Amino acid sequence: MRNTSWHVLSTRLIYAAKPWVELSVQTVRLPDGRVVDDYHQIRLPEYCVVYAETAKGQIIAARQYRHGVRGECITLPAGLIEEGERPLEAMQRELLEETGYTADDWISLGSYVPHSNYGCGKAHLFSARNACKVKEPCSGDLEESEVLLFTRDELFQAIMEGRIASLNMIAAVSLATNPNFRGSE
Amino acid sequence: MRNTSWHVLSTRLIYAAKPWVELSVQTVRLPDGRVVDDYHQIRLPEYCVVYAETAKGQIIAARQYRHGVRGECITLPAGLIEEGERPLEAMQRELLEETGYTADDWISLGSYVPHSNYGCGKAHLFSARNACKVKEPCSGDLEESEVLLFTRDELFQAIMEGRIASLNMIAAVSLATNPNFRGSE
Repeated sequence: MRNTSWHVLSTRLIYAAKPWVELSVQTVRLPDGRVVDDYHQIRLPEYCVVYAETAKGQIIAARQYRHGVRGECITLPAGLIEEGERPLEAMQRELLEETGYTADDWISLGSYVPHSNYGCGKAHLFSARNACKVKEPCSGDLEESEVLLFTRDELFQAIMEGRIASLNMIAAVSLATNPNFRGSE
Repeated sequence: MRNTSWHVLSTRLIYAAKPWVELSVQTVRLPDGRVVDDYHQIRLPEYCVVYAETAKGQIIAARQYRHGVRGECITLPAGLIEEGERPLEAMQRELLEETGYTADDWISLGSYVPHSNYGCGKAHLFSARNACKVKEPCSGDLEESEVLLFTRDELFQAIMEGRIASLNMIAAVSLATNPNFRGSE
């Protein structure tokens, strides 16, 4: 079988502000022998995102300022995975903190790399059904947030109007509602 | 109307390797007056990804090593947008270079931010129909690549087996094939 892997000859750390960002530059050898001495790698925290529906089929979202977008957009519940937490555990904690909802029926939509050249962390996507409100939200996030309930049509309308700016949320919505996809429990 | 925007008080450039990576740290003022002095921003090149089908409904993909994943995965045609290029133009050029295919029927699936806190560039997603092979591929990419044709079922099988690792490709496939979504021409 042909070998397509790159071989890392050296890694030089450029900048680290743990746990937020770690930037390094690598010298790599390609399978054909060429050496590239300026291939960057970016480490960011892993995070989780959920497409959560209530028993009536309403989707839990929020209106929130996102600094990476420089504006307000429609978001799904999401958050960083803390040290020692499993992704599903982190997602259930974040859903409760951010929105005050819990759910008893969870499906994994998979784990994906935000940037296939540089890495930039890992996104763990989930779908949850039968979400119920059990308390008032209290996220502790830097961003102010207003919890909103959307129908599926309204959510796709928001996508088509460019109001959902984040790639991971687009992936979660469009996988969770895609009849070709079956997630794992 | 309430103001949720953050105000950037200062930006300090930490590292620049143009056009690949630019890392800076900002001091920002939140709407409630709090000041955060270590909010990072990451600039990466904008890129484009396409879900392209032939007239027979076969999807153009590839098997390719991706360094951000540290392994071989199934990819869609994608590439960086060059200086002065419009995203659609870049996508048509990359499709031809990487796979040898052209297509005459293009839909925009939208433009999204890979990381809603830090930015990390912008992903422009497209769908194309009636793709035809017109020449041999010649990508000039660092990665070796083998062009493959998948049925829709095979492509979703690859997603469910974790063989499509990249968030932007997951978003392109699942939006392009989602009956709730209508793209714009």
